[in-house]
Amino acid sequence: MKPRKTITESKPGAAALPSWNDGPAKQSIVDFVTRVTTAGGPDFVPAPDRIAVFDNDGTLWCESPLPVQLAFLLERVHVLAPQHPEWKDQQPFKGVLENDMKAVVATGMTGLVELAMATHAGTTTEEFDQIVRDWIGTAKHPRFQRPFTELVYQPMLEVLELLRANGFKTFIVSGGGIEFMRTFSQTLYGIPPEQVVGSSIVTKYEIRDGKPVLTRLAKVNFYDDKDDKPVGINMSIGRRPIAAFGNSDGDFAMLEWTAGGAGARFALIVHHDDAVRESAYDRAPGLAKLARGLDEGPGRGWTLVSMKNDWKRVFPIDAV
Amino acid sequence: MKPRKTITESKPGAAALPSWNDGPAKQSIVDFVTRVTTAGGPDFVPAPDRIAVFDNDGTLWCESPLPVQLAFLLERVHVLAPQHPEWKDQQPFKGVLENDMKAVVATGMTGLVELAMATHAGTTTEEFDQIVRDWIGTAKHPRFQRPFTELVYQPMLEVLELLRANGFKTFIVSGGGIEFMRTFSQTLYGIPPEQVVGSSIVTKYEIRDGKPVLTRLAKVNFYDDKDDKPVGINMSIGRRPIAAFGNSDGDFAMLEWTAGGAGARFALIVHHDDAVRESAYDRAPGLAKLARGLDEGPGRGWTLVSMKNDWKRVFPIDAV
Repeated sequence: MKPRKTITESKPGAAALPSWNDGPAKQSIVDFVTRVTTAGGPDFVPAPDRIAVFDNDGTLWCESPLPVQLAFLLERVHVLAPQHPEWKDQQPFKGVLENDMKAVVATGMTGLVELAMATHAGTTTEEFDQIVRDWIGTAKHPRFQRPFTELVYQPMLEVLELLRANGFKTFIVSGGGIEFMRTFSQTLYGIPPEQVVGSSIVTKYEIRDGKPVLTRLAKVNFYDDKDDKPVGINMSIGRRPIAAFGNSDGDFAMLEWTAGGAGARFALIVHHDDAVRESAYDRAPGLAKLARGLDEGPGRGWTLVSMKNDWKRVFPIDAV
Repeated sequence: MKPRKTITESKPGAAALPSWNDGPAKQSIVDFVTRVTTAGGPDFVPAPDRIAVFDNDGTLWCESPLPVQLAFLLERVHVLAPQHPEWKDQQPFKGVLENDMKAVVATGMTGLVELAMATHAGTTTEEFDQIVRDWIGTAKHPRFQRPFTELVYQPMLEVLELLRANGFKTFIVSGGGIEFMRTFSQTLYGIPPEQVVGSSIVTKYEIRDGKPVLTRLAKVNFYDDKDDKPVGINMSIGRRPIAAFGNSDGDFAMLEWTAGGAGARFALIVHHDDAVRESAYDRAPGLAKLARGLDEGPGRGWTLVSMKNDWKRVFPIDAV
């Protein structure tokens, strides 16, 4: 039997990242992993400091035409509507119930927060976990007509695996709801709940029917986006990552903070330029706008991934 | 060569917990570990769910006559005083500078927060890390005249090791400052920074001299104590622990929440009843008051540890 190599000896070989086309993007990932794991090399990083952070929506799974959690939110409004007859006449709920998204969007961030609180609060953490699991087990993507959970990016799953095989600890750092993502992070990405950083609402400890529970209150606790992504990372992880992966300007500060540390650093942006297999969007205003990253990323040495050119396939279900 | 056993096969034997005297407390720990790691047994818990949480002050290291972070805070007031001539005439600073602790205590929680902000904010996270490391490398306990870092509880180090050897992930969950504790958690306890949950102040992302940094603002973000310990655990860990270790009523909710989950659960209180080797305190008012835990813990099936009777030695430096 061949002796098992230690992690730091097992360099990424030609077989690494099979769903990536050969090119500078793939090469930059393989090179970085090689550099930080080469014992005695100038860029060696001890395993405990090999922290990699990943945005979720648009970086690990499909977020277009709408983020998965927004689909959840919209359906929850319909499910809960019978208990809220007043919603029929009250924006943004009225707009959701009538599928009038223009009216919903017109309520702006205030309306979105109102919808989020109405659909995400009022249960215990354990009840909410079950609600999300039940929904995500059956909900389907409007275009692909497949479960959202199948619309993860195969090339990024391979990056997660490559990093972990090389002693990295992988984290999600997303603007998405922390308790929403934790229901699927282990199954979809191999990332346990304690390695998920996200947005949160306030919870309160109490004894309900003799049982200790945490109830979810209708109040925002932390919005893990933009300049608050480094804040969230510092709070939950307590180290500056050495690698960061994002896809929008909401990730810019996270990438900048990661890249700004001493020693070897890696920052990568997934550019959605594949209207055929997934979607194409960047500078147009929207939930995942990418402008500053496109303009400044490459000049800062960040890897810009063309979904269209760098990925052999997008989803695990795609033919290779 | 003897084949290496997998974690779940390696039961704690007679050699486990060498600094514990035989008795119900030690036995309860060993029994719990055996039950949750016995594959096929009624109480088996898969390794990823083996989450154990530990309070720090008074549970993992000595907190009397004053918590270590309070000693740090007091010295920082002296160090920073030349930059703050106004402190000479202003409580609670005046009291600290004149070693008049009565005057300091009279300012109550408001005064304590004021002192904490003045001594913990205003730097970057990386500068603060260095300040704490420099201090803790030289500061000594007033009674034992040894570095605070030597005054960790040997029996609890053995519990941490026993749990980790049996597939547990160990976390600190303390009212202490998260960035304070992260400077020593790995070295003292084998707990990496990302497994430390604690109190925090607000941080802000900014570019300073062209470098991305997080600056520490003079504003409390989260106070990880009492009913907010389960909140902090849920935020950072995202699972209900199956084992919790504390020493004061500040840990009551954490123990109650842990013990209140389904399946095998373990809760333990360290009772400081050893005035000779460490100290004796419980019901008297103070930073680590233990009253409800003493009254209700045993009836709830929680383990109450007598430092005096259950521990062969307290500190690693003690003779066995």
